[in-house]
Amino acid sequence: MSLIIQKYGGSSVASTDHIRRVAMKVASTKIRGNKIAVVVSAMGGQTDQLLALAAEITNNPPGREQDALVATGEQVCAALMAITLESLGHKAKSLLGLQLPLITDDVHTRARITEMQTGKIAQILDEDIIPVVAGFQGITADGSITTLGRGGSDTTAVALAASLKADCCEIYTDVEGVYTADPNICPKSRHIKKISYQEMLELAGLGANVLHSRAVELAQKYQVPLVVKSSFGGEKETWIVNEEEVMENSIIKGVTLEKNVSKISLIRVPDRPGIAHRILSPLAEAAINVDMIIQNASIDGYTDFTFTIPTTDLSKAKELISEVAREIDAEKMLAANNIVKVSAVGIGIKTNPGVASRMFHSLSAENINIEMISTSEYRISCVIEEKYGELAVRAVHKAFDLDNVKEETEI
Amino acid sequence: MSLIIQKYGGSSVASTDHIRRVAMKVASTKIRGNKIAVVVSAMGGQTDQLLALAAEITNNPPGREQDALVATGEQVCAALMAITLESLGHKAKSLLGLQLPLITDDVHTRARITEMQTGKIAQILDEDIIPVVAGFQGITADGSITTLGRGGSDTTAVALAASLKADCCEIYTDVEGVYTADPNICPKSRHIKKISYQEMLELAGLGANVLHSRAVELAQKYQVPLVVKSSFGGEKETWIVNEEEVMENSIIKGVTLEKNVSKISLIRVPDRPGIAHRILSPLAEAAINVDMIIQNASIDGYTDFTFTIPTTDLSKAKELISEVAREIDAEKMLAANNIVKVSAVGIGIKTNPGVASRMFHSLSAENINIEMISTSEYRISCVIEEKYGELAVRAVHKAFDLDNVKEETEI
Repeated sequence: MSLIIQKYGGSSVASTDHIRRVAMKVASTKIRGNKIAVVVSAMGGQTDQLLALAAEITNNPPGREQDALVATGEQVCAALMAITLESLGHKAKSLLGLQLPLITDDVHTRARITEMQTGKIAQILDEDIIPVVAGFQGITADGSITTLGRGGSDTTAVALAASLKADCCEIYTDVEGVYTADPNICPKSRHIKKISYQEMLELAGLGANVLHSRAVELAQKYQVPLVVKSSFGGEKETWIVNEEEVMENSIIKGVTLEKNVSKISLIRVPDRPGIAHRILSPLAEAAINVDMIIQNASIDGYTDFTFTIPTTDLSKAKELISEVAREIDAEKMLAANNIVKVSAVGIGIKTNPGVASRMFHSLSAENINIEMISTSEYRISCVIEEKYGELAVRAVHKAFDLDNVKEETEI
Repeated sequence: MSLIIQKYGGSSVASTDHIRRVAMKVASTKIRGNKIAVVVSAMGGQTDQLLALAAEITNNPPGREQDALVATGEQVCAALMAITLESLGHKAKSLLGLQLPLITDDVHTRARITEMQTGKIAQILDEDIIPVVAGFQGITADGSITTLGRGGSDTTAVALAASLKADCCEIYTDVEGVYTADPNICPKSRHIKKISYQEMLELAGLGANVLHSRAVELAQKYQVPLVVKSSFGGEKETWIVNEEEVMENSIIKGVTLEKNVSKISLIRVPDRPGIAHRILSPLAEAAINVDMIIQNASIDGYTDFTFTIPTTDLSKAKELISEVAREIDAEKMLAANNIVKVSAVGIGIKTNPGVASRMFHSLSAENINIEMISTSEYRISCVIEEKYGELAVRAVHKAFDLDNVKEETEI
C-alpha cells in the first residue's frame, strides 16, 4: 500500500464544482488501494480577495494579522473538500496548519517551517480517514498563525511527504507540468518530462509559477519523489528527480521571465568599507530578499550602488533605504519597477563555456539593452527593460535550439 | 480603570468602512482610560455565504467541517479589525477561539463552553494591546474547531466578561436595544430601558434577535452587567439587570414572533408507557431542541403525538422520527413548517391571574386559531398559522396596553 500526498492549487479548487472533481480524483486514488493525504490551496482568487479587503484599510497591515486573515482561504477550501469527500462516502477530516501542528518561525507572511509534527495526521491515516490539510499555513511556537509565502502550499505538501516518508508527492496544477518556457509567451516551448531538482529550483526561483522554490529545496533534501500534473486531466507530467536520473541533458533546460522585479539605486554613496552591509542589513532584518547587486567602481571616494528586490517589497524597501541614504550621506535614491529578469537555466551551463555570450548575443541581436547580469552554476540572468521581456524570452529560447519544430515534442 | 468588553455584530462590521467606524469607537473608549477587549461576529452576510458554499455540495455537511468552514467568517473580521486598530495607532492582536483557548464540548454547530482560559488575553491586556476576539467559535479538548450556534458571539463576549471580571459587557447591534415588539411588525412598539435577565432570557429564546439566550443565561449566572446599544450611534440603550433593579414592572414586557418553528405529528401511536421518551430521545441525541409537546388523550390504546422543533432541524428530525415511526408502529408521520409562535413575556405573569385568557381572547377576537399553547412563570406562547403572525403580535401588544400612544415613549 502506497502513501501518496496530493496537492491541489487554487485553480484546481476554484469552485465547488472544481472541488467535487478533485474529490473524485482523490477518492479514486484511495479506492485503488493507496493511503492518501490531500493538501489544498485557497479557492482560486480567494487570497487576492482577502488581501484586497486589508488593502481597503491600509497598505501596511501587520504581518501577524495579514496571516490570520489570508489563512482563512485554505481553511475554507479544506473544510469544503472534507465535506465533499464525506458526501462521496469517504471519511475525511480537515486539518489546519495549527492543528497538525506545522510549527514555523515568526517571520510573518513568509515563515519557514521549523517542525512538522505528524502524530495527529498519522493517526487519522491509520483510522482510514482522508486528512485534508490546509496548505500555506503554520503556527509559531507561541501560537500565532503564520503563512509560508505565495505558493507555500507546495511546501506544506512536500514537508508532509518528507515527514510521513510518503512514496510520492503529486502536485496538481492548471498546467501539464513544466515547459521550456511559458507557452503563453513562447508558443514554441516544449514540455519537459524529467528535470533535476537543481534546475527546477532555479526555474521556481525565477518566476516559473509551477512550483514553490522551498518545496523543491525540501524535496531534494529529503529525496521526495515529486511530480507535477494537470488537475484537468492532461496526460503529460513532469518528474523532478536527481541530476543523474535525467537522461537527455540539453545545455539549457528552460527560459524564464520574472516580472516581480524592482531596482533601487543609491547615487554618490561615500565609499567606505562595510558600506554594502550598512545599506543591505535593514532589508535583511525586514526579510526582504535582495537579488542582484551592482556596485560601480569608486570615483573620487564615491560609488553608485544598485540592487534588485521583489516589486511586492518595493514600498517597504524604499522606506528603509531612504533612511539609510540620509544616514550615510548618499546624494539621492532612485527606484524603478519597469524592469524584468530573463534567465536561462540548465545543468549544461557549468560544463559548456560560451553559454553566457550566446545568450547576450541573442539579446543584442534584438536591440535589447542588458542593465544587470548575474550568473550561477545553473543559471544566467539578465535584467532588461520590461517592454522587451516576452521578445527576449523567445530570442533566448530560439538561440539555445529549444524551439519546438514539430507538433508537441517533449524533452 | 474599567475593563470593558465590547461586542459588535455582523451588521456593525459589514464592510471595511463599518469596521473603521467601529475601530474608532473602540479607540475612543480606550483613550478615555479604559481597558478594552473587542469581540466580533463575521462581517454581515459572510456566514450565510459560507453555508451556501457547503449547500452547493450537500444538505448535510458533517458538523466538524461546517464549523471549520464558518469559523473563518469571524477570523476574517477579527484580523481586519486588528489591522484597522493598528492603522489608527493602537496595538491590537486578533485571537481565535482556539487561541484563547475557549474550550467547548464536541456538539458541533451548537457547542457549549466548558472552559474559558484567560491567561493569554489577560497578558495581552496587561501589555496594553487591544485583544480582538473572533466570537462564536471554540475548540474541543482534542483540537477540533466548534461554533456556539447562531448569535454565539454574544456568548463569547459575556463569557469573557465573566471570566475577566469585566466591569461591563456592551453588546453593539443594529438596533437601539430591546423593544416591546419588533418595530418592523408592530409600529407602536416602545423602547425598553431596563429589563430583567429572566425576561430577556425568555425574549431571546423566542426569536427576539437582539441577544443570544445563552449569553443572557451566563450574564445572569455570573452577574455580568450587560447593555445593548446601537453601533450606529443612537442614544437609546437597554440594560439587562436583576429583577429587583427593574423599577417599572408592567405585567407584560414584550411580545415576540418566532418563525423558525416546525411541527411533527405521529398519528395513531400505540400508547405504551415510555412512548414519549422512545420518540424524543433520538432527537435529544442529535441535539435537536424539542419545544412544545402535545399528546392527545388515548383512545382505544392509541394516541396522537405532536411536537415542535426549529425549522432548521426539520429535515434531520423527519429522518430520525420516520425511523422511530416504523419501529413503534405509528400509522403515519406528518410534518408542517407553516406555523409560527407568538409569545407574551413578563415578570408580571406569575403574579397576575388572567393574563393567559386575556392573550387568548385577543387572538380569538381576530379569528386566529390557536394550535398549541405552552406557559411558564414568565411566558405564554401560542402556535398559530404562519400567515397570522404579524397580526397576532399587534393584537397581543395592544391587549396588554403596550402600544405607544405618544411619540417615542419608553418603558
